[in-house]
Amino acid sequence: MRHLDKLLLILDFLGTLVFAIEGGTAGMKANLDILGIVVLAFTTAVGGGIIRDLLIGAVPPNAIRDWRYGGIAFLGAGIVFFLPRLVQRVPYTEMIVLDAAGLGLFAVSGAAEAIEFNIHPFIAVLMGTITGVGGGTVRDMFLARVPTVLRADVYASAALAGAVVTVVGLKLKWNPALVTAAGAVLCSLLRLRAVCQHWNLPKVMMR
Amino acid sequence: MRHLDKLLLILDFLGTLVFAIEGGTAGMKANLDILGIVVLAFTTAVGGGIIRDLLIGAVPPNAIRDWRYGGIAFLGAGIVFFLPRLVQRVPYTEMIVLDAAGLGLFAVSGAAEAIEFNIHPFIAVLMGTITGVGGGTVRDMFLARVPTVLRADVYASAALAGAVVTVVGLKLKWNPALVTAAGAVLCSLLRLRAVCQHWNLPKVMMR
Amino acid sequence: MRHLDKLLLILDFLGTLVFAIEGGTAGMKANLDILGIVVLAFTTAVGGGIIRDLLIGAVPPNAIRDWRYGGIAFLGAGIVFFLPRLVQRVPYTEMIVLDAAGLGLFAVSGAAEAIEFNIHPFIAVLMGTITGVGGGTVRDMFLARVPTVLRADVYASAALAGAVVTVVGLKLKWNPALVTAAGAVLCSLLRLRAVCQHWNLPKVMMR
Repeated sequence: MRHLDKLLLILDFLGTLVFAIEGGTAGMKANLDILGIVVLAFTTAVGGGIIRDLLIGAVPPNAIRDWRYGGIAFLGAGIVFFLPRLVQRVPYTEMIVLDAAGLGLFAVSGAAEAIEFNIHPFIAVLMGTITGVGGGTVRDMFLARVPTVLRADVYASAALAGAVVTVVGLKLKWNPALVTAAGAVLCSLLRLRAVCQHWNLPKVMMR
Repeated sequence: MRHLDKLLLILDFLGTLVFAIEGGTAGMKANLDILGIVVLAFTTAVGGGIIRDLLIGAVPPNAIRDWRYGGIAFLGAGIVFFLPRLVQRVPYTEMIVLDAAGLGLFAVSGAAEAIEFNIHPFIAVLMGTITGVGGGTVRDMFLARVPTVLRADVYASAALAGAVVTVVGLKLKWNPALVTAAGAVLCSLLRLRAVCQHWNLPKVMMR
Repeated sequence: MRHLDKLLLILDFLGTLVFAIEGGTAGMKANLDILGIVVLAFTTAVGGGIIRDLLIGAVPPNAIRDWRYGGIAFLGAGIVFFLPRLVQRVPYTEMIVLDAAGLGLFAVSGAAEAIEFNIHPFIAVLMGTITGVGGGTVRDMFLARVPTVLRADVYASAALAGAVVTVVGLKLKWNPALVTAAGAVLCSLLRLRAVCQHWNLPKVMMR
């Protein structure tokens, strides 16, 4: 069990780093200065987890209590600022894969933490989804954009699917390691398949 | 007293449903997919209450603790998505009346809850107002719009008036049922009158 | 020590008033009605402190517990609304100086409060920065603008510098009065110098 916790923490940190780099890159593309890049790296990386922690009453949030989250977000911003070409040279596919992995991990860990705080399963699914997509949403609001999560692509829905698997599995007392792994993998694969095949969710048909 | 509580809860749920349908409809009009509609239905319906609960220290917020709020918001989103024509066929007037009723109810219940949490009356009035208008404000920020509450029409001011009546009445130990009813009715009527007569609040005159 | 606390509180109130007037003025320039001016005055004046308090677990936030913050924000909105010409007649330089003073004070008090709540020094610096710039950021998001803090000028960085001095000094157990004074003065001077000399932070150089 010790090993599982450590593995989860490492994966969580990896997700934080990926999201920080994504946020920082968004700031660079919006022509922001170094501090704007840092701010966007932070909000993208830890925004979702902070919102979840505030909502389920886990104060101060993990990302505030444990300085390593902030440190990793800072590291991500530094990579974007000092090695912009390296970041841009990461192939598009690898970036999408990393992002899908981060999304799956955050969705699963968010849902699991909500269950631990005795939140109703239905709401715990929402908390997992918010953990996955919250950071990117705050980033988009900072950039005065309609959050991409609201637009047409399977992103939040993938997080939702991963969170559902996690919550159902944990409630049925299945093996937590298997459940969270299955949830994270399902979310990531859904997201990747959606990108590859240009899936979109249905819209209201008004003829 | 049991009956009053039950009545208030039912009215609160009704307000949640109305706001969820409004939020979902805004998402549909912005051409969002089903998940975007769900997100906007949620934020509009429970956003104001969640912000208030976070501010007065009632964590986890009501809407997180009690899954029925989320369920009702979900129901509202489903109605918009699966019955879009029904929603659009609701006459404009009925929608305005329902919205005004929801506003009044949320303003009053928000102010009352703040008083229960021993918040200063002046701040309790603000909390009531935020409960009424907070959800719509978050919705507008998601859609990258200047929140309508900031623009010219008597909306937040109606919520403020209802909250003032509630706070004054509760502090003077008047009958809570009468006080909240009076506050909610005042707020709703003010809002309706403002819509009918195109009232606007004064702006700064700079010649 | 009593005297120091009182002095800090007075300075905090002064900063709140300055920020409220700034927020209200932004609302007036965006052609909002009186309520929009009040809302922007509030969010600008107390937004940063509220976000910090929520994050470090100081609930309900200071600005909710102590009605005087709200009262001062209200006063600032009233000044803008009833004396718009007076506000506009304040020379640009004086306004910048006052704003820089408010920024320094908020950054220092935010960092100091985070340290008191046993937050890790690295995060405490962030909390100081957020206290300084948070209110203006929320105001800009309400106005559907990319927050100015993300754009090119030394604003958040000045707050960051002041917060670093405060955190380092307090951790080294230096005289709190001197440390906070030094932090606030450093932040304000940095900000003023940056305005005078059109300093900007570096951006990513792509070739």
